[in-house]
Amino acid sequence: MSQPTFYNAHHSPVGAFATLTLGEPGARGGLGHQLGAPAGHSVFVGCQVDGAKRFVALPFFAEAASGDEDRYQVEGAAERAPSVLSSFAEAEIERRLTPSLDEWCAGDLRFRIVSPPWSVPEPGSDAASEKAALLPAITAELTLDNSAGTTARKVFFGFSNDDRTQGMRHLRPESGAGFAVGDSVGVQTDHPKAWTANHFSVEQILLGEEPGLEANMLGETTLLVAEAAPGEVLTLRLAIGWMKTGWVTTGLRCRYAFTEHFDRLESVLGEGLATWAARLSQAELMDARLSPDGLSADQAWTLSMAIRSHYGSTQALVDESGRPIWMVNEGEYRMMNTFDLTADQVFFELLMNPWTVRNELDLFADRYAYHDEIGGQRAIAFTHDMGVANQFSPPGYSSYERPGLDDCFSYMSHEELVNWVCCAGAYLAETDDTKWLNARRDIFEECLQSLLLRDHPDPEQRDGIMSIDSGRCEGGAEITTYDSLDTSLGQARNSAYLAGKTAAAYAILARFLGSDEAREQVRRALKTLADSADAEGCMASVLEEGGHGSRIIPVIEGLIFFREAGVLADWEKDETFVGFLEACRRHLAAVLKPGVCLFDDGGWKLSSTANNSWLSKIYLCQHIARSMLGGGDLRAYAEADRAHNGWILNPDSRFWCWSDQMVSGRAMGSRYYPRGVTSILWLKELR
Amino acid sequence: MSQPTFYNAHHSPVGAFATLTLGEPGARGGLGHQLGAPAGHSVFVGCQVDGAKRFVALPFFAEAASGDEDRYQVEGAAERAPSVLSSFAEAEIERRLTPSLDEWCAGDLRFRIVSPPWSVPEPGSDAASEKAALLPAITAELTLDNSAGTTARKVFFGFSNDDRTQGMRHLRPESGAGFAVGDSVGVQTDHPKAWTANHFSVEQILLGEEPGLEANMLGETTLLVAEAAPGEVLTLRLAIGWMKTGWVTTGLRCRYAFTEHFDRLESVLGEGLATWAARLSQAELMDARLSPDGLSADQAWTLSMAIRSHYGSTQALVDESGRPIWMVNEGEYRMMNTFDLTADQVFFELLMNPWTVRNELDLFADRYAYHDEIGGQRAIAFTHDMGVANQFSPPGYSSYERPGLDDCFSYMSHEELVNWVCCAGAYLAETDDTKWLNARRDIFEECLQSLLLRDHPDPEQRDGIMSIDSGRCEGGAEITTYDSLDTSLGQARNSAYLAGKTAAAYAILARFLGSDEAREQVRRALKTLADSADAEGCMASVLEEGGHGSRIIPVIEGLIFFREAGVLADWEKDETFVGFLEACRRHLAAVLKPGVCLFDDGGWKLSSTANNSWLSKIYLCQHIARSMLGGGDLRAYAEADRAHNGWILNPDSRFWCWSDQMVSGRAMGSRYYPRGVTSILWLKELR
Repeated sequence: MSQPTFYNAHHSPVGAFATLTLGEPGARGGLGHQLGAPAGHSVFVGCQVDGAKRFVALPFFAEAASGDEDRYQVEGAAERAPSVLSSFAEAEIERRLTPSLDEWCAGDLRFRIVSPPWSVPEPGSDAASEKAALLPAITAELTLDNSAGTTARKVFFGFSNDDRTQGMRHLRPESGAGFAVGDSVGVQTDHPKAWTANHFSVEQILLGEEPGLEANMLGETTLLVAEAAPGEVLTLRLAIGWMKTGWVTTGLRCRYAFTEHFDRLESVLGEGLATWAARLSQAELMDARLSPDGLSADQAWTLSMAIRSHYGSTQALVDESGRPIWMVNEGEYRMMNTFDLTADQVFFELLMNPWTVRNELDLFADRYAYHDEIGGQRAIAFTHDMGVANQFSPPGYSSYERPGLDDCFSYMSHEELVNWVCCAGAYLAETDDTKWLNARRDIFEECLQSLLLRDHPDPEQRDGIMSIDSGRCEGGAEITTYDSLDTSLGQARNSAYLAGKTAAAYAILARFLGSDEAREQVRRALKTLADSADAEGCMASVLEEGGHGSRIIPVIEGLIFFREAGVLADWEKDETFVGFLEACRRHLAAVLKPGVCLFDDGGWKLSSTANNSWLSKIYLCQHIARSMLGGGDLRAYAEADRAHNGWILNPDSRFWCWSDQMVSGRAMGSRYYPRGVTSILWLKELR
Repeated sequence: MSQPTFYNAHHSPVGAFATLTLGEPGARGGLGHQLGAPAGHSVFVGCQVDGAKRFVALPFFAEAASGDEDRYQVEGAAERAPSVLSSFAEAEIERRLTPSLDEWCAGDLRFRIVSPPWSVPEPGSDAASEKAALLPAITAELTLDNSAGTTARKVFFGFSNDDRTQGMRHLRPESGAGFAVGDSVGVQTDHPKAWTANHFSVEQILLGEEPGLEANMLGETTLLVAEAAPGEVLTLRLAIGWMKTGWVTTGLRCRYAFTEHFDRLESVLGEGLATWAARLSQAELMDARLSPDGLSADQAWTLSMAIRSHYGSTQALVDESGRPIWMVNEGEYRMMNTFDLTADQVFFELLMNPWTVRNELDLFADRYAYHDEIGGQRAIAFTHDMGVANQFSPPGYSSYERPGLDDCFSYMSHEELVNWVCCAGAYLAETDDTKWLNARRDIFEECLQSLLLRDHPDPEQRDGIMSIDSGRCEGGAEITTYDSLDTSLGQARNSAYLAGKTAAAYAILARFLGSDEAREQVRRALKTLADSADAEGCMASVLEEGGHGSRIIPVIEGLIFFREAGVLADWEKDETFVGFLEACRRHLAAVLKPGVCLFDDGGWKLSSTANNSWLSKIYLCQHIARSMLGGGDLRAYAEADRAHNGWILNPDSRFWCWSDQMVSGRAMGSRYYPRGVTSILWLKELR
């Protein structure tokens, strides 16, 4: 694999909704908190050129980084120093990215960012582990190897302040140096020789010709600086951290869980440095676990990017009553715990933080369930999300769904109903948490009744699939998670994609409720699907008259929950199920062809009639095809994997780290997105 | 007076560092918190055109206010509605601004913003008054007179969200409607017929054709809407409020004092509406007090603008120990309690909130005093400021001062030393707080010793004026508050401006310490000044060889503290003082001439050699000239007042509300500034 060097990636603690996004040239990354896009300020990582009053840095800064000193000196603006800072060229830089590490080498400078994806323990179970996992900081290592140098050379790390509400300050730790923007974000080193300097102009800081910059607070740029003597290899260990006190959400008032362990930035940064070595060990441990041998380089890179974008979107919160709340924010849209994302991210969460799945399901059950009426009976469903951008929506309502529509922003009642059951099944399979199952049995039973009613109130007319739009649509029509695709995937009623997942939901309910009715519905749904196959073996995308226009891959999607909810054994010998598996094999063989469900570059096209293809779902379907449908081993998809990564690395995409909605190979929606962790399933193929 | 209609003005609660800045066309104002400039988002205040699906609004919005819906609907962007919203033309609008009210009338729409400048009581003295004064909200009234209307017409108020970190939400009060951005800023009405709607496009909200917008949370614009029936006069009473929980400063950790009374936005807005009528009465009361008959229209407008910009910059804080801290932020620079501003704002604070002066002086004495060494003795001085942009600087250091300079950013040791004494004298004169005087007597005595040493360590060589630069300058030279002017006012050593204020400081110390030495220093300083007069009667600007190049007005500035510190009676019969008064009269007569210290438009030019003239100081010197030097009555300055207001209203200035540093009549520095309240002194001329 030869990836380009310059692309943004998240470097995030867990549960802080915080990120150092870095990798694109220019002021295109930076330290963000609660944002739907990279912060967009300059970051300076560099060193002095040997024997010169010139400096060279990784290219993460705006070239014209001059400040606003003129506002103070009104007549006769300050003269600008000549440009003494330049960027390393791409060819001079080597970059290596793993789930935990991002290492940049350029000349005799090395910069390594350490952000291991921690597992967050069940709240209240292990305070020490929780403190380690939830520390809202990442660490880094900046080394200047001046062993061949003939002069003392500065090495520096710093950034510009883009916070309009507060200024920069110098931290004064007992040992070392640091600086911060308010109490919000800062960096600190324990190196005794380091100092900080603030000025309007980064060049003045580097030249160091003006006295007093170690106390100045008026500039918008601050750097941590140290000087390596000739012959010295100087390494700065850094902690980069975030803090936010007070309430951060409305509707349901929450604060960050990390505030139970840390009450100010100084304690965060101090802890980061005190545990610096342990964090590096954790990084190596997690890399071994999440980036094992057996993955191709392309696959390993995909997974690294996906995990980073996911964890950068997570929020571990505590509400006013002390209840823990796990939140995944929806990338650029920042909708909260969007349920159709949860159902894709569940495999990752169950590997890393199983309790979070139960936590989300409980909040959906307790606050974000609602009932509509079908055939005179109450039928439960769940909202699309829990709010947006730190604003919890009112109970029973999402931030997104509106009545009277049949497209984007319509209701996803059936989709989210199925997702509750599928996530619950996967959680139970992973944890054997029968106590929870028993506590929630009412909801499981309500879900079964609701699924049946949404098929048809008259049992005689049921075919296993969703046929009735929620009353909340008020004459509109339900949609699926594929809201911005065309009807082939976007319409919920009679959707083949949703039918597959619905079958899995019935299978889970059959297992945990012991329901024969549910079992029968599995068969009906799978039969309806299999029977829709045409002469080429293609199943329909929409299981209704005229629904054959498109070929879609996600007809196979529901299979994953048969396996991940542990109910596959119930069905492996079932004739209908075996027939459906065979139908899926034939379907895949028929559609995975150029011009149908493959792009010219070998990438997967979820629907033959849409150029909008979603990477999270592709990763999932790749895994299903290989592991459940005999579609080849892990390495058999090299061309597709390379194409998919190329989409992420497209010049129009790579500002956004990992993105989901790719239109003809360019990120056009669902950017900066947490959903790519479906790729975690690939690790199961290595067992 | 005929002012243009469109210029920004602050509309602020007291002590919340919050502002609704409004008045310029475009997205040039908005709801700001802790900012050094207008927020810059669209505000929508308007109504429906009778009988049409068209709407007209005050022009406070970006014309292309279309949203980012396309990010959701990736392929085939949503069609844009035709533009149904337009602005009233300037000629259709009448605006009337007072210290408390800003009223806009356009057609049958009336919008009145109510933000009376409250007095904040001594903390702990009167909880109910404090709660009323510190409520972080303003109120408003929006009326659509549809009595001539033939159709039901909508009337609306709302704004777009420019907070990158959090979204908008609908408030659901028991009666009425409201919306907010997080828990940070919001608006609410108690009108039972009002509703809120959120969308990507303000036009969709106004047309009201899409259902569900009353619950949607994804858009970046929300409006409060109500509908007036034909014949109905509909009035919405509004509360517009701010909230911020948690710690907001570093260095000295503080929260807002209003959090002692209010813990969330809902309670702020509810209180605003519950006390709506009382707030309107308070506005009328304060207008009668702060904008009395006797001021010209120009003067009244100046004072209104100045008071608004001052109160929008104030912060009533409480530190971790529960200590109240009063903070005035320095406009676009946001330096905290900049001491040379305090000394100009002291007259306003003593009228409104006398305790705040003591509060500031105590913090300067306890945390922001420092000592340098002169002639082997320790000499006290005070820092330029207490920090910047919510970051308290370390004890004994400002955010601004740096060694080794002789221009902007150098030390202001002597200036701030004099300012401590002058402010203390004015405080004592206003309050008779001998308890505080006795508690602080050590500081007064240290100040006297320091002033003497900075004149000369050898008593024989003293001439009453500052001759020795602080050791903190490390070879540089001290400056005065006039940091960005030329040497005529900017250099501290031998500055005639500073000499006048130094004389006042000695007079205060003579009174309160009963010091003959201080009394003698008053005479020396005034004599040095008077003796510098040339044949035309012009005193020098810099009292040293070659210091005669410039003519400056502020040589008279120190006189104000003789009167305001109540020590004038000690000097009225003193020959030297009387001689100095006469010298000032002759000086003013000589310099207040076109081409010397008058601009072509009649505006005052503080220094004959600089085009940079500062309005706060002009107002102060106008008052001194009239009230102490027989320079005519209040109305004799009509041409100058008109010119000065013209500077504020210059197209390059009026975005910034009130600004101080005017270069040839355009705001070039010290914009969005709190210092203009020196104009409060004009009220004393009406007694």
